[in-house]
Amino acid sequence: MHMVDLIARKRDGGTLETAEINWLITNYTQGNIPDYQMSAWAMAVLMTSMTLRETIDLSLAMARSGTMLDLSDIAPIVGDKHSTGGVGDKTTLLLCPMVAAVGLPIAKMSGRGLSFTGGTIDKLESIPGFRADLPTDLFRHVFREVGLVVASQTEDLAPADKQLYALRDVTATVQSTPLIAASVMSKKIAAGANCIVLDVKYGSGAFMRTLDDARLLTQTMVGVGQSCNRKVTGVISSMEQPLGRAIGNALEVREAIEGLHGEGPTDLVDLCRELGSRLLVLADKAESYEHATALLDEVLQSGAALEKFRQMVLYQGGSVGVITRPERLPQAPVVAPVSARTGGYVAAIDAQALGLAVGALGGGRARKGDTIDHRVGLVLEAKVGDAVEAGAPLLFIHAASDADARRVEQRLLDAYTISAEQVPPPPLIADVVEY
Amino acid sequence: MHMVDLIARKRDGGTLETAEINWLITNYTQGNIPDYQMSAWAMAVLMTSMTLRETIDLSLAMARSGTMLDLSDIAPIVGDKHSTGGVGDKTTLLLCPMVAAVGLPIAKMSGRGLSFTGGTIDKLESIPGFRADLPTDLFRHVFREVGLVVASQTEDLAPADKQLYALRDVTATVQSTPLIAASVMSKKIAAGANCIVLDVKYGSGAFMRTLDDARLLTQTMVGVGQSCNRKVTGVISSMEQPLGRAIGNALEVREAIEGLHGEGPTDLVDLCRELGSRLLVLADKAESYEHATALLDEVLQSGAALEKFRQMVLYQGGSVGVITRPERLPQAPVVAPVSARTGGYVAAIDAQALGLAVGALGGGRARKGDTIDHRVGLVLEAKVGDAVEAGAPLLFIHAASDADARRVEQRLLDAYTISAEQVPPPPLIADVVEY
Repeated sequence: MHMVDLIARKRDGGTLETAEINWLITNYTQGNIPDYQMSAWAMAVLMTSMTLRETIDLSLAMARSGTMLDLSDIAPIVGDKHSTGGVGDKTTLLLCPMVAAVGLPIAKMSGRGLSFTGGTIDKLESIPGFRADLPTDLFRHVFREVGLVVASQTEDLAPADKQLYALRDVTATVQSTPLIAASVMSKKIAAGANCIVLDVKYGSGAFMRTLDDARLLTQTMVGVGQSCNRKVTGVISSMEQPLGRAIGNALEVREAIEGLHGEGPTDLVDLCRELGSRLLVLADKAESYEHATALLDEVLQSGAALEKFRQMVLYQGGSVGVITRPERLPQAPVVAPVSARTGGYVAAIDAQALGLAVGALGGGRARKGDTIDHRVGLVLEAKVGDAVEAGAPLLFIHAASDADARRVEQRLLDAYTISAEQVPPPPLIADVVEY
Repeated sequence: MHMVDLIARKRDGGTLETAEINWLITNYTQGNIPDYQMSAWAMAVLMTSMTLRETIDLSLAMARSGTMLDLSDIAPIVGDKHSTGGVGDKTTLLLCPMVAAVGLPIAKMSGRGLSFTGGTIDKLESIPGFRADLPTDLFRHVFREVGLVVASQTEDLAPADKQLYALRDVTATVQSTPLIAASVMSKKIAAGANCIVLDVKYGSGAFMRTLDDARLLTQTMVGVGQSCNRKVTGVISSMEQPLGRAIGNALEVREAIEGLHGEGPTDLVDLCRELGSRLLVLADKAESYEHATALLDEVLQSGAALEKFRQMVLYQGGSVGVITRPERLPQAPVVAPVSARTGGYVAAIDAQALGLAVGALGGGRARKGDTIDHRVGLVLEAKVGDAVEAGAPLLFIHAASDADARRVEQRLLDAYTISAEQVPPPPLIADVVEY
């Protein structure tokens, strides 16, 4: 087998055999295929795509490049959830305790934030003492004891994907539906869950800008999961405006805790009910979607979901005091309002611009390894469809300094579109791709 | 400037500015841009193409990556010729002495053979003692004294092209019209000629398989030349069957010398008259195409072209005895006929198959640095349109051993298509793209 032939085949729109994809991933991870061939191959794939069968093969080959976690000795059915990333997306923090409280154990490995989107691990690390970096035995221990664990991806989780993703990141080959699908699914397949709900976001604050792109990605990932004996349902949700009101690590943890107290923003709670119900039905933990929703509402009202979250934080070394007293979470010294210049209705909010502003405040990272300020972020006062008066606050900036706040003020103002007519907010759930 | 942005721009079908292309080539040759980014960029360019302006910029940037040869102190007008490569293509050996004998000095840097095509330098090195590897001062000396020099490309001729071509070769990014055009033209621009005739070959024995592909490449190269103050005419010629009758290094030199004696095969001589006339008109060395052709015929008949060749061989250290006694060229010990199985007419000859067979006999190289056997090759007895009788020879194999000859016999037979009806040979000149 010659790598140059495999590149040429993809360049010319052909397909690779299973054995060829296995050969390619094995030799790439062993260092026998140089990066310059792999990046040319990735660009050819980006331009000509891959069949579902190729995408499945690539997902499996990358999953098998590291340890395949097996949790079946602890629980026969293990749930997992993945979001393609958005702005203000603290869904995991609320959803996973809810589902686990109903009785589906959740073992989740998460990533850190990159570019304009936040990452669950960064958010959890706002909690003093919280340990996300768990060795496998500790990961298994927390999962066994609590039935819920959220940790950062281990070094040995699909290392081929890590290597390929790092290369794609610097060669403009990220935006390929089959490569994104294989990257996500390789990690999900290797992480040990057998029931998975995918939250695929589209819109101004997501990597997928259009509903069509999001639908194709969702169908691909669900197809990959099915072929690998995973039950997968994909929910396509709007990221045309930020989810909830808080953006920024500690602020989002606070909003999630409020949600667990039954006081979360409607869109966030609705999304968690949708995703959670789909996951419970997949795992046969509910008789129907409606039944699942009722079970989720129950664990929110009873405090069982909050208690599940508290236990996870406790077992992962975090200060559980923040759960009853969220003011103990790190707080920014400066809180500055951004006020509407004219009255009217909020017609649109550029979610990506808000995400980038949080990054500029120090709450995100431009590149891997950057340190972040968990305190900073934004809290939205007005969302799409809301009436605003001239001079009334649209949002509040939580910043490390006055200068920092002033630096992002104008771009935040620009991110809001105010119109004379009221515009209804975009529907939250656009489509569901069922298993 | 970020390389990842330039890759993304080409991926999305955008164009790069002149300054961006200069930045890219400068930083690639300085080692600041890694191969894995350059190969992704090359694949993106292959898939989405480049504008003529971008191709011109790339050609110039690569030309300027090394020394730009200036021969204007020796001759105000300098001619050059380039072929995109074919099978049995010894045109340079005949054409350049003819044109130089008419009075247009020729300074040509040539390549070595690769894959199924031969290279002028390999052919010339069949002549005992011939030195192709000339330092610049010697190159200039031969040019001044003889008005004709053919040498291998210096290390410092468009080094960016060398580096990029080596990368393209192993990343399946060779087959891009703008990249091929820029590769050729960067070297032509750096090599000091101001009048250039391009022989762009298409067909089974050429890199460009279709006339349309060849036309686009020709138009691009002529366009690049014009923008760089070079007079360039492109001739598109058929390589549907080998040129002349000889394929293989020493055998081709012998055929070229026979041509200089006025006894060359018609197609080879016709092509040299076409290319030579175009070049002489470009350089204002003839009043018209017809006048130029008459001048070329004259130097063939008078022996002036032969004498020009003799002088060049002499100045470049070669044994001039081979010119009067071609039997002194290296000769293969075995000459074996391949005979027609059935009678009829030759309808087609797979030129690439013949070129590869010569490689298999030891007369070509599979990779850079391979040594080659100058003696071996093929001499065609029958060409397209010729009548053949069953049992009569189609061609002769010149091999190092009987076993070598037998090993290629069947594939040579397969390369010939014999039909009951006579088929006219394909027209030699398909099109001309004039300056």
